[in-house]
Amino acid sequence: MFKIESIKSQSPQVAIDKERKATKFDITKMFEFLESGKDEAALTKSLMQQIERDTILKTNASYYDLTKDQHRELTAQKIARLATYIEKDAPFFENFQKRLNLIAIVDPQLGTRVGVHLGLFLSAIRGNGTEEQFKYWAFERGAAYLKDVYGCFGMTELAHGSNVAGLETTATFDPKTKEFEINTPHLGATKWWIGGAAHSANHCVVYARLIVSGKDYGVKTFVVPIRDRNHNLHSGVAIGDIGAKMGRDGIDNGWIQFTNVRIPMNYMLSKFTKVDPETGDVEVPPLEQLAYGALLGGRVTMVTDSFRMAQRFITIALRYSVGRRQFGAKNSREELKLIDYPLHQRRLLPYLALTYALSISSFDLSQTYDSVLSNLDAAGKSQDFAKLGQAIAGLKNLFCASASLKSTATWYVAQLIDECRQACGGHGYSSYSGFGKAYNDWVVQCTWEGDNNILASNAGRIIVQSIIKLQEKEKKIKGDLSYLNGISNIDKNTILLPDKPSMTNLSKLINAYQGTIIRLGVRCAESIGSKKSTWDDIASQRVVLSKLNAVLYMLQHLVLKIKQLGDEEAHKQYLVQIAALFATSQIEMNFASYFLQFKAIGSLEPVADVVSELCLSVRDQVIGLTDSFQFSDYFINSALGSHSGDIYNTYFDTVNNLNNPQVRDGKAAYSEALEAMLRRDSLEVRECFEKSDKVLKKLAPKI
Amino acid sequence: MFKIESIKSQSPQVAIDKERKATKFDITKMFEFLESGKDEAALTKSLMQQIERDTILKTNASYYDLTKDQHRELTAQKIARLATYIEKDAPFFENFQKRLNLIAIVDPQLGTRVGVHLGLFLSAIRGNGTEEQFKYWAFERGAAYLKDVYGCFGMTELAHGSNVAGLETTATFDPKTKEFEINTPHLGATKWWIGGAAHSANHCVVYARLIVSGKDYGVKTFVVPIRDRNHNLHSGVAIGDIGAKMGRDGIDNGWIQFTNVRIPMNYMLSKFTKVDPETGDVEVPPLEQLAYGALLGGRVTMVTDSFRMAQRFITIALRYSVGRRQFGAKNSREELKLIDYPLHQRRLLPYLALTYALSISSFDLSQTYDSVLSNLDAAGKSQDFAKLGQAIAGLKNLFCASASLKSTATWYVAQLIDECRQACGGHGYSSYSGFGKAYNDWVVQCTWEGDNNILASNAGRIIVQSIIKLQEKEKKIKGDLSYLNGISNIDKNTILLPDKPSMTNLSKLINAYQGTIIRLGVRCAESIGSKKSTWDDIASQRVVLSKLNAVLYMLQHLVLKIKQLGDEEAHKQYLVQIAALFATSQIEMNFASYFLQFKAIGSLEPVADVVSELCLSVRDQVIGLTDSFQFSDYFINSALGSHSGDIYNTYFDTVNNLNNPQVRDGKAAYSEALEAMLRRDSLEVRECFEKSDKVLKKLAPKI
Repeated sequence: MFKIESIKSQSPQVAIDKERKATKFDITKMFEFLESGKDEAALTKSLMQQIERDTILKTNASYYDLTKDQHRELTAQKIARLATYIEKDAPFFENFQKRLNLIAIVDPQLGTRVGVHLGLFLSAIRGNGTEEQFKYWAFERGAAYLKDVYGCFGMTELAHGSNVAGLETTATFDPKTKEFEINTPHLGATKWWIGGAAHSANHCVVYARLIVSGKDYGVKTFVVPIRDRNHNLHSGVAIGDIGAKMGRDGIDNGWIQFTNVRIPMNYMLSKFTKVDPETGDVEVPPLEQLAYGALLGGRVTMVTDSFRMAQRFITIALRYSVGRRQFGAKNSREELKLIDYPLHQRRLLPYLALTYALSISSFDLSQTYDSVLSNLDAAGKSQDFAKLGQAIAGLKNLFCASASLKSTATWYVAQLIDECRQACGGHGYSSYSGFGKAYNDWVVQCTWEGDNNILASNAGRIIVQSIIKLQEKEKKIKGDLSYLNGISNIDKNTILLPDKPSMTNLSKLINAYQGTIIRLGVRCAESIGSKKSTWDDIASQRVVLSKLNAVLYMLQHLVLKIKQLGDEEAHKQYLVQIAALFATSQIEMNFASYFLQFKAIGSLEPVADVVSELCLSVRDQVIGLTDSFQFSDYFINSALGSHSGDIYNTYFDTVNNLNNPQVRDGKAAYSEALEAMLRRDSLEVRECFEKSDKVLKKLAPKI
Repeated sequence: MFKIESIKSQSPQVAIDKERKATKFDITKMFEFLESGKDEAALTKSLMQQIERDTILKTNASYYDLTKDQHRELTAQKIARLATYIEKDAPFFENFQKRLNLIAIVDPQLGTRVGVHLGLFLSAIRGNGTEEQFKYWAFERGAAYLKDVYGCFGMTELAHGSNVAGLETTATFDPKTKEFEINTPHLGATKWWIGGAAHSANHCVVYARLIVSGKDYGVKTFVVPIRDRNHNLHSGVAIGDIGAKMGRDGIDNGWIQFTNVRIPMNYMLSKFTKVDPETGDVEVPPLEQLAYGALLGGRVTMVTDSFRMAQRFITIALRYSVGRRQFGAKNSREELKLIDYPLHQRRLLPYLALTYALSISSFDLSQTYDSVLSNLDAAGKSQDFAKLGQAIAGLKNLFCASASLKSTATWYVAQLIDECRQACGGHGYSSYSGFGKAYNDWVVQCTWEGDNNILASNAGRIIVQSIIKLQEKEKKIKGDLSYLNGISNIDKNTILLPDKPSMTNLSKLINAYQGTIIRLGVRCAESIGSKKSTWDDIASQRVVLSKLNAVLYMLQHLVLKIKQLGDEEAHKQYLVQIAALFATSQIEMNFASYFLQFKAIGSLEPVADVVSELCLSVRDQVIGLTDSFQFSDYFINSALGSHSGDIYNTYFDTVNNLNNPQVRDGKAAYSEALEAMLRRDSLEVRECFEKSDKVLKKLAPKI
């Protein structure tokens, strides 16, 4: 209706089409590489299409206009729809998990809603409960299908987040009735931020201090019914809505206060902790920490989320950067594409490389998680101590890797979304570009399920501890940190990346990262050993170690996967460049001072030059490299990033479809207030001339 | 109602009160220092109180629950209220400007709404129009008082942002009728993002190509009426609402298309460009760029905004960090305050130092702006070429300083808000903490009125060009960049900060920054000189130069101001520490690799140690250092950052006042959808058993 004609320069869609046709590799093969295999890729595509074509799960630009209440209502409908998918996916719940991960690309809050139920509530029951308890709640009652039981996860309290052991809700055993009394002793112990609690869940896994005969056995887990069959609150349970949040409006986070709520004693999850109903004796076996394994799934999922969100937003920014033009060579009517500016390449292409690096790691970490959990299960059942030992070692390894990767990946992707938004200029600020809501939804990932600074310090502490052990006992380290065994080969004075040609050598880059981590780690270990510093004093170095470790993990896994490709594969050479770009740009952006300080590089200039050159060498493949993600416009959901590249028409139409200029003669509801302001009388009139000379003269005392 | 009792550890309010009492300096004196003087401080306080007590301008926690439509409506009422303040402030418009800056602390969108009218629309008329034209629109018609004329600023187009010279709207002179015809030739030339256009403004300063007798004279400015006295659109003017944005919902950004809209020829702003009504001759004098001076005011204001926003959010995070406890020493019941963790100090205190450094610079830059503008006015009137030359030199200097400071300060404050939010953990994600909306409102500052990357590259280019000129002509540089004259004294091989004691020496720190800029700048100059690189190739170094220059500016101005204090003043020693913390933490956070590379420091470790030590030495004064901002709870508007420090009660009450748990029996509007899901029939029943063995048997062909 308002469109007139296209702009004079080459239209964005023609530009993108041209670059798309110049793709020099098979994007299907690249897609399969990114999805970690042909079968996985086919499954990804099929699930994406099922989501996209489902009229209830639908998400489009109107999503960005919804109020909090509308988001909540729509989310409830979508949850009900998803419940029917679980029934069909069963017993292949991993299929549903993948479906959920993909939905989270366009509707993160929906992913969380169902994720809290399946991944936290049910995983807590799986991790802490007996097999019978899990079977009862999951299958007999129906929680596994989001039927009958809708669970929430009652860990965090108003005054306690990261320090789980310090939680203050109590579960006191009553030997007479064989019940537990769940109680919130004071305001600070109010359960807080509980997703699904405000209006949805009817059961809660409550983390509370087990008190038996006056003795405090520390924090254990209890299934507490909070709403009855008619969805009314049980007596003794007070719940409120936490209200507006920075993002994820579709989640009804709530607070819960329990006032001496009684539950049958077998509602305590008792795989590990057991209370004898007759004697009141408490059995707390040493391996209780294993319960935590199931909850690491959340962190693993967040690395997958990081990969998916990075794919979506780097695609938008790169398509825009090909379609959008700005300034140009002197005497040229046609302006330059944004992506042809070296600065723009340097802003975006390192994030494209990060996206690629995240892909492989996210799949590998998921696999590790699955095998660690099944090893734990198997070892637990067999009672074989050697197996159990191995399983526990695997769990520790996963703990470090998931902490390091979750924190680094979620921080990096927050930066990625922000940089991509800024790279789309003013238009990135429009809600219909998708950046705003995505950023607001995203950044909580840096805080929940392990605050990033705490996770990263933990991972960093494990690295330093491993070095201390290596130095003390010289026992080799296994697992992801085995590279630390190289400590003995490190000659402090060698420059690890001596000259420019070595800057793109992937093995040497891996070496340089390992060397930097070891050198920084050794310094930390010395500082601790000599008691010059406490662990808290070196917390910021521990965070750096964790980030370095995560980047190294991504780099190693990417390189390993690339090596499996035949040299004749056209996409291999681009992957090699991308891996080198990832490694070098990370040095430049985040670690340059450490690489310089620890002689991993001799000077910054060659690294910077190599980053520029690598940017230039992938520049002409940016459309192919993002098309390889195979995201349809549905999953992109951005007025600036559609596949056709027709930025301006799409954007203009989106704006006008959602903001009809014809209503109310184009006037706003508040037009009258403004009109009254503009047409107001003069100050003198409004003041009834009461400050005029004439009046003031009258008021003057006669002298 | 829901409160039960206080938590066991020392309550947050007691902790804050205790630290408040331990303040070792006079916070009123510190306040006066930050506000650049006693009188300014008194004015700040008085204006803040007027805003806070005005029942229409009121902003409280309910602000965070408003929908876009509600924000727009309330903002319109507030604009009307502010219009009456302008009348009272007149003719001291700088008073009103300060009022507006202060309102923007809690209601940035309101600041922008009025700022677009006064600072862009009217400033464009002031900068581009004749004195008579300005007088007519501002005073005779009433725009200066937001009366009769409400203006918007029609610069940006859908396909053109930063490249103003490339705008495509046309203003074609019709010699017969002595009119201009304003036209939008195609979709890409649609005016876009125009604040106030969607529903409010009735006039627009349109940037359009002046076409006379078929010749294109480039982009000039025209006042175009867009709505009539009844607020209906003029024929030929099509306007729509751009809709939802990441933030600043209260602003009705719109798009405008002109279809051969005719305006009288004297609606062209013609201080510089003149069209002869008879001959059609066009006079374009060489000093047209001077028109731009008035528009630099926006950038200057954004440095002030940066200071104010930093004050607000560092206060919230630091008060929270004193009240909130987490983990603790072994065997201690009482947990540690967040702020007592070295990592937490290192996360927040460098931003406290940044806030202090921003204060002085923001006032100094505003003063420079005022004097540059009045010099330009005076020189223009006097026609004295020497004066004009000086005024132009002042303008160029301001251009560089404002570009460098605007971009650096707005980027840093975006980081500050984000880090402060993360430092408040999960609670930082609650809308009632204030972080979410503030971040969303803030980040557009990095993009509008000169995209940060473009401004920073421009400033960086000026630095490199100055070095090239110095090397070529050896003519001394005046103004802010005069430190570049030190180029001849720089011995490349000297380490500028050789040992730990020198790391806190403010003069040496200033020297080190200057040295680093010169060394990096010289390398860039050589690269350009030898044609090894184009200007675009070194754009990322230019951005670094701009950031270094901004930090140096802040540091120098802060140190200068500190030197004016007597040594007996108790707050002086803290200011000295803060200045050193600012300088060293900036090296560590943002410039370490450059300082290492260019031998400003020999190694990173002493810098890191000094940062830790300085953090520790200001740690016990954090309450006093933020109380010195004298922000009342109204200006803080955060459930986590009130003056009393009573975090948990305030937060809990805010949540419950705004989300009454008693409505609808505590059920949500969507409860039925969830209940139906939970109570749904089994899959078999819903499928009418049509996949049962019995049925399938019936359906099987008989063989």
